[in-house]
Amino acid sequence: MEVAANSTAQEQYQAIYQQVRNHWDKLCKPLVREDYVMQTEAGVSPPKWHLAHTTWFFEEFILKNNHSSYSIFNEQYPYLFNSYYNSMGQYMEKSSRGMVSRPVLDDVLAYRRYVDEAMMELLQQADEKSMAALQPLVNLGLNHEQQHQELFLMDIKNIFYHNPLNPVYHETDLPVSTAQPLDWHAVEEGLTRIGYEGEGFCYDNEQPRHKAWLQPHALATRPVLNGEFLEFIEAGGYRDSRYWLSDGWDAVHRYNWFAPKYWIKDERGFKIMTLNGLKKLDENEPVSHVSYYEADAFARWKGLRLPTEFEWEHTARDHRVAGNFMDDECYHPIMPEQFDGEPCAGLYGNLWEWTMSPYSPYPGFQKLAEGVNEYNAKFMCNQFVLRGGCCATPADHIRPTYRNFFYPEDRWQFSGFRLAKDL
Amino acid sequence: MEVAANSTAQEQYQAIYQQVRNHWDKLCKPLVREDYVMQTEAGVSPPKWHLAHTTWFFEEFILKNNHSSYSIFNEQYPYLFNSYYNSMGQYMEKSSRGMVSRPVLDDVLAYRRYVDEAMMELLQQADEKSMAALQPLVNLGLNHEQQHQELFLMDIKNIFYHNPLNPVYHETDLPVSTAQPLDWHAVEEGLTRIGYEGEGFCYDNEQPRHKAWLQPHALATRPVLNGEFLEFIEAGGYRDSRYWLSDGWDAVHRYNWFAPKYWIKDERGFKIMTLNGLKKLDENEPVSHVSYYEADAFARWKGLRLPTEFEWEHTARDHRVAGNFMDDECYHPIMPEQFDGEPCAGLYGNLWEWTMSPYSPYPGFQKLAEGVNEYNAKFMCNQFVLRGGCCATPADHIRPTYRNFFYPEDRWQFSGFRLAKDL
Amino acid sequence: MEVAANSTAQEQYQAIYQQVRNHWDKLCKPLVREDYVMQTEAGVSPPKWHLAHTTWFFEEFILKNNHSSYSIFNEQYPYLFNSYYNSMGQYMEKSSRGMVSRPVLDDVLAYRRYVDEAMMELLQQADEKSMAALQPLVNLGLNHEQQHQELFLMDIKNIFYHNPLNPVYHETDLPVSTAQPLDWHAVEEGLTRIGYEGEGFCYDNEQPRHKAWLQPHALATRPVLNGEFLEFIEAGGYRDSRYWLSDGWDAVHRYNWFAPKYWIKDERGFKIMTLNGLKKLDENEPVSHVSYYEADAFARWKGLRLPTEFEWEHTARDHRVAGNFMDDECYHPIMPEQFDGEPCAGLYGNLWEWTMSPYSPYPGFQKLAEGVNEYNAKFMCNQFVLRGGCCATPADHIRPTYRNFFYPEDRWQFSGFRLAKDL
Amino acid sequence: MEVAANSTAQEQYQAIYQQVRNHWDKLCKPLVREDYVMQTEAGVSPPKWHLAHTTWFFEEFILKNNHSSYSIFNEQYPYLFNSYYNSMGQYMEKSSRGMVSRPVLDDVLAYRRYVDEAMMELLQQADEKSMAALQPLVNLGLNHEQQHQELFLMDIKNIFYHNPLNPVYHETDLPVSTAQPLDWHAVEEGLTRIGYEGEGFCYDNEQPRHKAWLQPHALATRPVLNGEFLEFIEAGGYRDSRYWLSDGWDAVHRYNWFAPKYWIKDERGFKIMTLNGLKKLDENEPVSHVSYYEADAFARWKGLRLPTEFEWEHTARDHRVAGNFMDDECYHPIMPEQFDGEPCAGLYGNLWEWTMSPYSPYPGFQKLAEGVNEYNAKFMCNQFVLRGGCCATPADHIRPTYRNFFYPEDRWQFSGFRLAKDL
Repeated sequence: MEVAANSTAQEQYQAIYQQVRNHWDKLCKPLVREDYVMQTEAGVSPPKWHLAHTTWFFEEFILKNNHSSYSIFNEQYPYLFNSYYNSMGQYMEKSSRGMVSRPVLDDVLAYRRYVDEAMMELLQQADEKSMAALQPLVNLGLNHEQQHQELFLMDIKNIFYHNPLNPVYHETDLPVSTAQPLDWHAVEEGLTRIGYEGEGFCYDNEQPRHKAWLQPHALATRPVLNGEFLEFIEAGGYRDSRYWLSDGWDAVHRYNWFAPKYWIKDERGFKIMTLNGLKKLDENEPVSHVSYYEADAFARWKGLRLPTEFEWEHTARDHRVAGNFMDDECYHPIMPEQFDGEPCAGLYGNLWEWTMSPYSPYPGFQKLAEGVNEYNAKFMCNQFVLRGGCCATPADHIRPTYRNFFYPEDRWQFSGFRLAKDL
Repeated sequence: MEVAANSTAQEQYQAIYQQVRNHWDKLCKPLVREDYVMQTEAGVSPPKWHLAHTTWFFEEFILKNNHSSYSIFNEQYPYLFNSYYNSMGQYMEKSSRGMVSRPVLDDVLAYRRYVDEAMMELLQQADEKSMAALQPLVNLGLNHEQQHQELFLMDIKNIFYHNPLNPVYHETDLPVSTAQPLDWHAVEEGLTRIGYEGEGFCYDNEQPRHKAWLQPHALATRPVLNGEFLEFIEAGGYRDSRYWLSDGWDAVHRYNWFAPKYWIKDERGFKIMTLNGLKKLDENEPVSHVSYYEADAFARWKGLRLPTEFEWEHTARDHRVAGNFMDDECYHPIMPEQFDGEPCAGLYGNLWEWTMSPYSPYPGFQKLAEGVNEYNAKFMCNQFVLRGGCCATPADHIRPTYRNFFYPEDRWQFSGFRLAKDL
Repeated sequence: MEVAANSTAQEQYQAIYQQVRNHWDKLCKPLVREDYVMQTEAGVSPPKWHLAHTTWFFEEFILKNNHSSYSIFNEQYPYLFNSYYNSMGQYMEKSSRGMVSRPVLDDVLAYRRYVDEAMMELLQQADEKSMAALQPLVNLGLNHEQQHQELFLMDIKNIFYHNPLNPVYHETDLPVSTAQPLDWHAVEEGLTRIGYEGEGFCYDNEQPRHKAWLQPHALATRPVLNGEFLEFIEAGGYRDSRYWLSDGWDAVHRYNWFAPKYWIKDERGFKIMTLNGLKKLDENEPVSHVSYYEADAFARWKGLRLPTEFEWEHTARDHRVAGNFMDDECYHPIMPEQFDGEPCAGLYGNLWEWTMSPYSPYPGFQKLAEGVNEYNAKFMCNQFVLRGGCCATPADHIRPTYRNFFYPEDRWQFSGFRLAKDL
Repeated sequence: MEVAANSTAQEQYQAIYQQVRNHWDKLCKPLVREDYVMQTEAGVSPPKWHLAHTTWFFEEFILKNNHSSYSIFNEQYPYLFNSYYNSMGQYMEKSSRGMVSRPVLDDVLAYRRYVDEAMMELLQQADEKSMAALQPLVNLGLNHEQQHQELFLMDIKNIFYHNPLNPVYHETDLPVSTAQPLDWHAVEEGLTRIGYEGEGFCYDNEQPRHKAWLQPHALATRPVLNGEFLEFIEAGGYRDSRYWLSDGWDAVHRYNWFAPKYWIKDERGFKIMTLNGLKKLDENEPVSHVSYYEADAFARWKGLRLPTEFEWEHTARDHRVAGNFMDDECYHPIMPEQFDGEPCAGLYGNLWEWTMSPYSPYPGFQKLAEGVNEYNAKFMCNQFVLRGGCCATPADHIRPTYRNFFYPEDRWQFSGFRLAKDL
């Protein structure tokens, strides 16, 4: 998010707001109107819903309370587009989001314009004191918008996967990954500091910064590759209970897993469904769309383990935050080159990396203020932390302390993993 | 379906074909593109699917085998648009029909034009012998098309009902029904003949015409009204197990039924959702969207019963087939006037009437030839017969011997009922 | 049920009562205490429950209202042992019957003795007028008891089947069946009379006797055999949708059916689980434990059909009611010999025969008085009629007009079938 | 487990073995045979199954490999009584454990005697080297047996709760709890050591002992009481989403929770079901049978949190391991007195205390050897750690480092909680 250096805070926020919000224009270009209302799995939301929900977020949490003359665009929209904020009133069940043909796309775009104009006005008219109060909320709203831009890419991949015609979202020649040897980056035991510290934006779940004790350990210098995962499959990994958590073994049978999500087997081997269409499996690419259970089973098969989120953050915080994020328009994980002076490759960009850390609050965690406090805090249970950001994440949305989280059986996100071991 | 009297059979069939197929233009006019892909309940199909499936029917059962130069429009469409014909190859699960954004509406319309042109050619070029072979299949295809036109109206009503915005399909002032006294039409015992006989089209399940013995009985001269059903509700009918079949009592609790489908209760009483929008309940209208269980429970509450399908046909076959069918563009059941010389009102048009007859084959029943033989025969189990045609049925699609059938818990069809009693 | 000819009605009923009730002693002999509380499938009730429920029936419907000094044995038993009589108060869900270890067997036997003594007193003291009122209810109670004795045998077979040790209920050498050629018994069209007429006991659903028109048809002279059904299996019958009703085809996949219930496949062929233990399949025995769907699919495979219940009754009513009923202590269907002068073999005894008739009320049907009126009437939906009685039915419980009924997917009853065809 | 001081290791193990195994005699005394086969909820196992499974454990993991002349008692028992050890062969589904009436109790007791005799022989004949190999396995087997003795008490409570007669397991006068003020025990930040170290037995999940950093915090000096939890209920806690984790809020609605498990509401307030029968709620008793979600919601309502398992262990390891464990034969949690010189009351005995720590492996965790390695390791996902031991735990089975674990929605274990806060 770049803005002119000599602009006022108001102008800066106006610029950033428009930049983030307008990125949808590019993201939506490949879609037809029918795509906008699809909900192909329980976790998926229709593209139209993302466009409207992120708009409702600004209306509900900012305009209603801060813009003196604002009136709700449509009285029924809060019911339709509230996601899960119980304290904001009743809302439609998530499973029904795909059952609503109207308001149509044009209505939702009008809603976006209406709210954008009001936001521009609000920022325009804000005095210094107001700006101080608005900034955290506007930042939250924009980061929220970016999260939904990533969710949109995850969801459209799922929507196109479920369509027997397998539509292509983005026509491009993907770079060919080159194999890299696996090596280990050793870290000694000691006290470290975990969590965000600084002036910029972070989520409540990244704070407070606190001390944590690290055990001696080593991190793999690159993520696990498709070719390595294929060996696990061919060694009967999905049929051998010894490698699996008990709940993972149940999931294998409940969902009939035999390979990562979006791998399609035919007589000639595996194809994978990508946002660039069906393509032959590239063995040198990092493996993606695995559940926590599959990542953990692979690691057990190797006699190794996943890193903790603290181990990950401790090593990654001194690396450059760079990789093929959303902005590179590849929308697909590739095997990254290693940067000079950095022991590990691919920590950022490409794929979210599962860690072995359950998603829990940091010591002294304080959730956000009433209203937006349902944002993160109520999900701190039964999920695992992923780190690093992926090829569908906006690049300026990522930082070393960022904690993403999914259920251990989730696989539609861009998730891979790297190995670790005790020393 | 009217055609010029002095035309050839070929010309007649071409004209009828176009007339039936083009009726969709009118039906689809109120829709937006997003409506075409909605599937809001398990029994509902998206409008786009209806347009494509009926087209596939002509391609699969007529063009592939009879048109010498025909080539399939798209190799993937049979998988997408076969409904349930196991002998025609694999097909998508019904529950996934709403998950397919593409082919988009324009693709489906192109598919329709492609098939229509081939059908016109085929009929154009058919000699007399070919026409003899084609006629039953074309008739079947056109009647099939008409059934889906009715299903389309049922489904779009459901789609709009599930949308919190409650869209209106057809703006119109509905006629106001006037109350009619209930009287009884008595019939003596004796042998009657049941089933279709004649030169016109009928389904396999209406044949063979056969003898059946009628017990002495009486039919109500009009269907049960909303006001009467409201009395049942207010008398606690939905909470009193004595009136219900055991499976019906289970359904009441499984689905939390407290009124017919599309009745919406607020503090001022009942509104009902119609294709003409939300409207106040008219107590003089015949009650609609009841399940077999609800019709049966009402009858038991009254100490009466539903008619058998043979009793219904015996009396109805001498009545005019007339009423507010689809072609009257009201799309809503009203209390019909009684025709001169006919003892019962409202037998045809308005609402399908539940009978107490399980849907079984007639004695000597022969299912259709290989291919289309899955049309009716495999459903002769666990369903009940309804008679008469409704406000969403094309008028020329109905005859006295017509047997419609639904599961006893189904309620999204336009179903009402009339009472009967033993004498 | 034989009693001394010169006894009073009171004495006769006392004798019959004790005879029927005491038959449990024999039936329960092979059981251990743990068997009495088992519930291995949703349709199965624990043996202890049968003993208590049939006792509750006499307490609830006879003693409470007719015995002046009777007091309820235990205030909690009606909740525990009412089956489905909503008008008699709340009762435990059927699925919980196997969750109640106490009252233990001895408590239930004490309950039986308590009620039996009260019944003996009631019958002892009844004057002629009271006897007239009591007789229908006592008859109903005893026939009800006999139905549960059959259910007990069905259920204990299921309980022992689900036990990996496969216990034997009754050690015996089963007679070897001998093959009989299949022939056809032709019947001309005409009016017949269906339903019970006479002085003896019958259920409400067998009445009123009424006229029905029969089409010309023929009945197979014997039921379908294991060997014939094996041919259907080996011809791929379970994998070919063409032979199956749509709901049947769904059931095949939902339950993974590949043979009748209790057929166990190993490398050497099929064994079947019987009350006499695991035994090698005898190809000359009539096939048993098939669902309606399987019977119907077999008939379609043969290009034939099942008989209607009216066709069955019309031919069977002039046959002797004889066969290997429960009283022969074989508890297994065998291929019966044909009686002199009777065209069909095996109509009674051995196996209930599926008919193609949905279970519906007869014209003019009147359900029983308040209280016991939930006995049959509320089940007249979604089930099919079976006729004839089986090897687990008490012999004196059967008559030509008897209508048994099960859901088309039920298979744990002793159900077979015979073929029919149109002439 | 006390044994004579001057005995050999062989004699000591024989004595301990018999002491632990024979404790079942006392536990089973209140049962009738029908109780032994009950399975009333998915998590519950029948008492007979516990008796047999613990016996199978010695047969499978010790006798088969170490006793030269041992032969399996019954070839079918491993299938019946293996719990979840996939590497030991196929086993019955957990949900079917209540479907097996045979082997009957006497058979299982004979199995126990057979294995016990073989174990006595094995220990008798073991030389020093063999003893060294046997000891860890025998210890594991005996600790496993003790875990099942606790599970037995949890399960029999559930079995009696589901019985409408509410049987009493143990007639006794429960001590009356006296209220204690809530105070806080403060702990400064610093490095601590977590995990078992020593010569005695511990589970693999308690090791390796490792360093961990504690944040400054305080622990409540006593657990939360029934009276305090009642305030939460009366304040609408179960109806206010703000206090609940998202998954917990779902659980509240899925299971219709309105109070802890075994609380029964009538017009006069709450009763609770105990192993001592139904009793009036004692407000001074520690609250029990709450899920993690309920414990967490209560803490959020108070603006506090649960302790981590490290915080708990750090403070508790210097406390006496004492309380009303199983051996006190109260089988019910009471409010314990505070011991001299110990800041917190009730850490051990009475109730397992939920911690906020997800159940994860310790750094450097090594699972047990092949065979028994499925004991703990495969469950390290989706569960939370509880500490302290309860009134149903054998007293000598508990130590400061003991990690119990349950799913956050489980409530049939004796689970309570104490509050904590950040300093």
